[in-house]
Amino acid sequence: MGITLGDPTGVGPELLARLLCDPQLRARWAGAEPVRIWVYGDDGVLGRAAAAQGLRWPPRDLPGLQLRAVTALRPAEARPGQPSLASGAAQVAYLEAAMADAAAGRVHGLCTGPLHKASALAAGMMFPGQTELLAARLGGEAVMMLAGPSLRVALCTTHLPLRAVAAALSVAGLVRVLRTTVLGLVADFGIQAPRVWVAGLNPHAGEQGNLGREEQEVVAPAIACARALPELAALPGLEIVGPQVPDVVFRQAVHPPDGRRPDAVVAMYHDQGLIPLKLLDFDEAVNVTLGLPVPRTAPDHGTAHDLAGTGRARPHSLAAALRLCREIVARRQHRGG
Amino acid sequence: MGITLGDPTGVGPELLARLLCDPQLRARWAGAEPVRIWVYGDDGVLGRAAAAQGLRWPPRDLPGLQLRAVTALRPAEARPGQPSLASGAAQVAYLEAAMADAAAGRVHGLCTGPLHKASALAAGMMFPGQTELLAARLGGEAVMMLAGPSLRVALCTTHLPLRAVAAALSVAGLVRVLRTTVLGLVADFGIQAPRVWVAGLNPHAGEQGNLGREEQEVVAPAIACARALPELAALPGLEIVGPQVPDVVFRQAVHPPDGRRPDAVVAMYHDQGLIPLKLLDFDEAVNVTLGLPVPRTAPDHGTAHDLAGTGRARPHSLAAALRLCREIVARRQHRGG
Repeated sequence: MGITLGDPTGVGPELLARLLCDPQLRARWAGAEPVRIWVYGDDGVLGRAAAAQGLRWPPRDLPGLQLRAVTALRPAEARPGQPSLASGAAQVAYLEAAMADAAAGRVHGLCTGPLHKASALAAGMMFPGQTELLAARLGGEAVMMLAGPSLRVALCTTHLPLRAVAAALSVAGLVRVLRTTVLGLVADFGIQAPRVWVAGLNPHAGEQGNLGREEQEVVAPAIACARALPELAALPGLEIVGPQVPDVVFRQAVHPPDGRRPDAVVAMYHDQGLIPLKLLDFDEAVNVTLGLPVPRTAPDHGTAHDLAGTGRARPHSLAAALRLCREIVARRQHRGG
Repeated sequence: MGITLGDPTGVGPELLARLLCDPQLRARWAGAEPVRIWVYGDDGVLGRAAAAQGLRWPPRDLPGLQLRAVTALRPAEARPGQPSLASGAAQVAYLEAAMADAAAGRVHGLCTGPLHKASALAAGMMFPGQTELLAARLGGEAVMMLAGPSLRVALCTTHLPLRAVAAALSVAGLVRVLRTTVLGLVADFGIQAPRVWVAGLNPHAGEQGNLGREEQEVVAPAIACARALPELAALPGLEIVGPQVPDVVFRQAVHPPDGRRPDAVVAMYHDQGLIPLKLLDFDEAVNVTLGLPVPRTAPDHGTAHDLAGTGRARPHSLAAALRLCREIVARRQHRGG
């Protein structure tokens, strides 16, 4: 399992140092079985972050841990809260090295630290986010899912202006998202008969066409088509239900009238899914990319430059991302073997 | 204060009968001071709904209550769960009579029962909802607000397809919504120095223009303009903050970092506001129309034909709507007098 440090001037180094070095925090994510862990980062940056928190780097009691020192970034080039051209390039280099090892089959899961987008773009990254970069490099039909204790949300569109969302939806695209979501719930979350609820796009789910026609023309046909896909039709007990009223479906997902919660809600756009997810599971949700050849998780927060170096950032989401990555890798290897 | 029955085949009659006749439920909304109440509906329909729940109609111990029997609808024309042309016309007639009395100054607040939209349209109502009809008849700059125990949300656009939202936003329109919201918080909710948070339109609030430009071109200028309006600039302590990141603003509104919750969040579109509102305050939120010459409240649910006649519908939201209407009427009369 590979872990990238993310932006070395953000909260990534201090959180990762704590989660690797502090035995109590390690219990939040490490399982009983030993795992080989490769960290893609810089020794000096991690060492400084550990020392600032009174921790010893590298940890002596974590046998599978290896640091893949990717760049020769000096700590002076990566001061907390002060992104630079060098730190921007370093975070992309960590990710590229990890993706190369993943593509070559040397790592079987990725957990990626938070990236600073502006300095990544300045360093030449040509993608709007890590999810898009990973999909381009590793192949597969990437779907962004946010998984929290209360709710899992899969997104049909991600980083788009709201005015572009409706035109970006298509039957073929939604079928792909539904297929990847269902197969991901089976393979990566170990759910045999997934229950998936699909939100509509428009207020009141379009109200029979009075408030928009995408429910009738895109969402409902995509659901019918996905149900008919042979690999989904073969799953006994699978339920794909929708299009549902957006302002009701999330409420009912956490308080279902019949007591049976869905395993995921499929949202049509970023904020439709992330507003309820963050309201319920702030700080605890994990960003999972489904559909890649190698599973990938990430914390549900950014670089938080205002907190970097203070030791006040909360490690909960990164811990949950590490745990989920470990669990998915184990589940895939169990199935594969 | 005027109360319209709403769709006589929905849950309106049974909920209203309980809230008027049952002394325990009446305590949820009626204050210590007597209020003159006019109910716009049909005697037979309310009598049947009361009798079905073992209640006496009309209640003997509610001195200010008068029934304004608007139509001669026979109960057989309004069977629970079976909307008809006659019931569709009746619900619109209740509303028209109440609006006429409001426009003439005979009632000082309206609480409207849930309307069945399809049969209202069939009966010739030319508006997408009661809010729009009230605004057209009574004048004023109507703003739809949902007020719950956890959150108040004001909407900049209401019943529009999602693809039409971005084009419907304008600086002038947003200034109007901000002005009406602030003045409504002062006049109707008795908040001296409102704190108003304004959501952006796009994911990450547009990310400096990378994910949409409406934050820079519409929302931010509208906030600046609203702050400069003489009637708002005159309010000491007023705060209008934004554009904020949509998937963070609602979370922070209920868990503010500095402990100070906003008095309202202004949402750009229906589901941006209603998804979090219903997640937190389902069953307890009140739909308030700000900016009308006469205050208007309504429950945050529909006609619920599947529950009509069963006695299982929950009266919480209609009770909250009655209470809020009573409070706003008292507050306006206190200020006026």
